[in-house]
Amino acid sequence: MKSHVRILGNAGSLRRGSYNQAALRAAKLLVPENSEIDLFQLDDIPMFNEDDEKRPPSSVVELKKRIRRADALLIVTPEYNYSIPGVLKNALDWACRPHGDSAWSGKAAAIMGASLGAIGTARAQYHLRQILVALNLFTLNQPEVVIADAAHRFDENGNLIHEPTKQLIRELLKNLVDWTRRISPALESTSASSTATAGHPLSGAAPA
Amino acid sequence: MKSHVRILGNAGSLRRGSYNQAALRAAKLLVPENSEIDLFQLDDIPMFNEDDEKRPPSSVVELKKRIRRADALLIVTPEYNYSIPGVLKNALDWACRPHGDSAWSGKAAAIMGASLGAIGTARAQYHLRQILVALNLFTLNQPEVVIADAAHRFDENGNLIHEPTKQLIRELLKNLVDWTRRISPALESTSASSTATAGHPLSGAAPA
Amino acid sequence: MKSHVRILGNAGSLRRGSYNQAALRAAKLLVPENSEIDLFQLDDIPMFNEDDEKRPPSSVVELKKRIRRADALLIVTPEYNYSIPGVLKNALDWACRPHGDSAWSGKAAAIMGASLGAIGTARAQYHLRQILVALNLFTLNQPEVVIADAAHRFDENGNLIHEPTKQLIRELLKNLVDWTRRISPALESTSASSTATAGHPLSGAAPA
Amino acid sequence: MKSHVRILGNAGSLRRGSYNQAALRAAKLLVPENSEIDLFQLDDIPMFNEDDEKRPPSSVVELKKRIRRADALLIVTPEYNYSIPGVLKNALDWACRPHGDSAWSGKAAAIMGASLGAIGTARAQYHLRQILVALNLFTLNQPEVVIADAAHRFDENGNLIHEPTKQLIRELLKNLVDWTRRISPALESTSASSTATAGHPLSGAAPA
Repeated sequence: MKSHVRILGNAGSLRRGSYNQAALRAAKLLVPENSEIDLFQLDDIPMFNEDDEKRPPSSVVELKKRIRRADALLIVTPEYNYSIPGVLKNALDWACRPHGDSAWSGKAAAIMGASLGAIGTARAQYHLRQILVALNLFTLNQPEVVIADAAHRFDENGNLIHEPTKQLIRELLKNLVDWTRRISPALESTSASSTATAGHPLSGAAPA
Repeated sequence: MKSHVRILGNAGSLRRGSYNQAALRAAKLLVPENSEIDLFQLDDIPMFNEDDEKRPPSSVVELKKRIRRADALLIVTPEYNYSIPGVLKNALDWACRPHGDSAWSGKAAAIMGASLGAIGTARAQYHLRQILVALNLFTLNQPEVVIADAAHRFDENGNLIHEPTKQLIRELLKNLVDWTRRISPALESTSASSTATAGHPLSGAAPA
Repeated sequence: MKSHVRILGNAGSLRRGSYNQAALRAAKLLVPENSEIDLFQLDDIPMFNEDDEKRPPSSVVELKKRIRRADALLIVTPEYNYSIPGVLKNALDWACRPHGDSAWSGKAAAIMGASLGAIGTARAQYHLRQILVALNLFTLNQPEVVIADAAHRFDENGNLIHEPTKQLIRELLKNLVDWTRRISPALESTSASSTATAGHPLSGAAPA
Repeated sequence: MKSHVRILGNAGSLRRGSYNQAALRAAKLLVPENSEIDLFQLDDIPMFNEDDEKRPPSSVVELKKRIRRADALLIVTPEYNYSIPGVLKNALDWACRPHGDSAWSGKAAAIMGASLGAIGTARAQYHLRQILVALNLFTLNQPEVVIADAAHRFDENGNLIHEPTKQLIRELLKNLVDWTRRISPALESTSASSTATAGHPLSGAAPA
C-alpha cells in the first residue's frame, strides 16, 4: 500500500498573466511531504461536441489519462459572470464522457480561486462544487481559499507574496492530502487524526 | 394613475443589535422622493405548518396585508451557513400560501445584506434570488449591496456612518423605484430614462 | 415607436441531433404576431482567452452584432453535470467583454431546456438564471419550460410533436414578448394587461 | 472500535400527513445491518434568535445532544419555493451555534426528498447541499433520491408502496453506512470495497 498522493492541478483561465494560473503554480511549491502537484493546461481542449465523444481529440485523451493517474484534483477557478469560465466547464464536460467512462468519478478534490475584487470567487466556487457532485468527486469543505485583491497578493512576475494566503494554501493542501488518504482505499492513511473534520463552520449564524 | 411607490421592508435577523435591521432602518431614511419604506418585523411569525395554512396566525394575516399594500419589497438578509436564515425563509413560505393566494406574486423587489466578514452575504443573496423567482417577484439586478465589515460601517447605536454604503443604498432604492414604475401597470413612469438598465455587469470576465 | 419584437435564439448543444436545437427550431414556428426569432449557432466560437478580447474572432464580433440587433434573448440549454454546457457559458463570457462593451446588458430573456431524463434541465436553468443576473439581463420568471423525456416529444426528424409542450412554448414566447415591451423604453406596449405578472408560483409550499 | 452506525433522521415538514415524514419512517425500516435510524421531530424548535443562543430552548439542547450521539445524518426535505423550508433551515441554524459549539461538524450526511410534482425536490436538495458544506458535513453524492409523484408512491396511511423507491432508499442507506465508516476515525470499516465511489455520474453530458 502506498501513501504518496498525486494531485492533478487545473486552472480555468487561459490568459498568460492569469492570477489563477499563478495561484496554481504557487500551490505546486506548497504541497506537504509525500505528495506532488502535476499541472495540466486546458489551452488545447476544443469545444465539446457529443457527436465526437467516441473519437475525442488527443488533448482530451491526454487529460483523461492524467486525471486517472492522479489520486486527487486541485481546481483553481476565476469567476466569470458569477460562475466558472466556459473553458473550465468544457474540460469537466469532456472528461466525464462517454457515459460510463468518466475519468473523474470517486476522486478527492479541492477548490480555490483568485480575483481582483473583494468578494473573490465565492459564487463561482459554489457552482463548481455543485458540478463536482454530479461528477462524483469528493470535495473538501475547508478551508475556503478565496483570494481577493489578487493584484496586491502576487508580484509582477506572478509570484505569490502574501504570507497569510500561502499559509491558507498550505492548510488546504494538507487537508486535501489527509482527505485523499482517508477516502481512497488504495492509499494508506498516515495521520492518526484528520484535520479535515477538525474545523468549525466558517460561516455560522454570525452576528449580522 | 399614481406615481408614489410604497416599499415594504423586512430583515431576516431577530436579534436586537442586528446590522441587517440597522441597514433597513438606514434605507428608510435614504428613499428617493415620491416613495416610502414601511417596516415589518418577523418576530411573531411562527413556524409554517401546512395544516394551519387556511387558518393562518394573525401575524401572517397582517404580513400578507402589508405586502399587498406595497408596490415593491426590500429584503435585507444576513448569511447563515451560506444561505438565508430560517426565519426569513419561513416568512416567505407563509405569505405565498395557500396555493393561489400568494401575496408576493408580480411585485418588484430589491435585496441587500450586511455581515461582519469580507465576503459579506453574497451567497445568501443568491439563494434568495432563486427563491424570489419561485415567488414570481421581479428582482432588481443592480447594484449589488453587499455590506461587508459591518462593525466598522455602523456606530454603536446602529446608525450607518459609512458614506459610500449610504450612496450605494440610495442608488439601489432609486433603481428599485424606477424599476417598480416600469413594470407595474398601475404606476405612472416619471423618468424618461431608466437607470436600471444603464449599469454594466459588476462581475464580468475580469482579469483573474 | 415600434412594437415588433426581435428575439435572438441560441442553443447550448453542438451535436447535430440535439433536442435543444430542435426545441429552438420549434420555438421559431411558435412566436406570437409582431415578433420573430433569429437563430445563431455557437459552433464557431473559440475558447475565451482574455488576452484576445480586444481583437475578438469574427464569430464573436458577429454574435455581439446579432445580440445588439435583438430586443430579447431565448436561450435553450441542455444540462451537463448539473449546470449549463461549457459551450454556452463560453459564448456568454465572450459577448460581455471587454469590460464596458457587453452586448447583453439590459435586454429581456427567456430560458428553456430539453433532456432525456425526468428532472430535465431544472438545475442547469438555475445556474443560467444566476449567470444572467451578472449579465444584467431581465429574465422571465414563468412559465418554466423543462422538457423532460425528450425522446418521446420529438420525432426522428427533430420535429416537436407533443402538443402540451408546444402550448407551453407558445405561452413562454407570448410572455417574453409582453415582458420585452414592458421593460424596453424603445418599444410600444400593445397589451393593456400583462400575462407576465398574472401567474402564481409554480412551486409554492405544496403538500409534500 | 465499533462498527454499528447510528443515523439521526430529520424531516423538514411539520404537517401530519407529510410525504417527507413518511419517507423518513420508511427509511427507518430499510437500514442495513449494524445500523439504525433515530428520529427527531422539529415541531418544538422556535425561531432562531442569536440573542438567545447562549440560553437555548430545551428542544435545541435535545436536538444537539441527539446529533452528537449520531455518526451520520439523514435529512429529508420538501421543496418550498425552490429551496428548503424555513423550518428545516432554522433547525440547521440553531444546532451550529454558538460559534465553536456546532453539533454538526465532521459527520456524514445523506439527503432525500419527496414531492407531488415531476421535478421533485432537485432544487431544494441543491440548496441543502450547499448549506451542509458550511456546516462541515460530508454529504454522500449518490444515489440521488428525488421521490416525485409522491401521491402514488405512498398509500393513504403513509406507507411507501413503490418497490423501486424502496430499493433506491436501501442503496442510499447502504452507501451512507459505508461512507460513514470510511470517513469516521472512530468506526471500523467492515466493507473491503466501497459502493460510494463505484457509481458513475447520474447526469453526465447526456444526449440532449
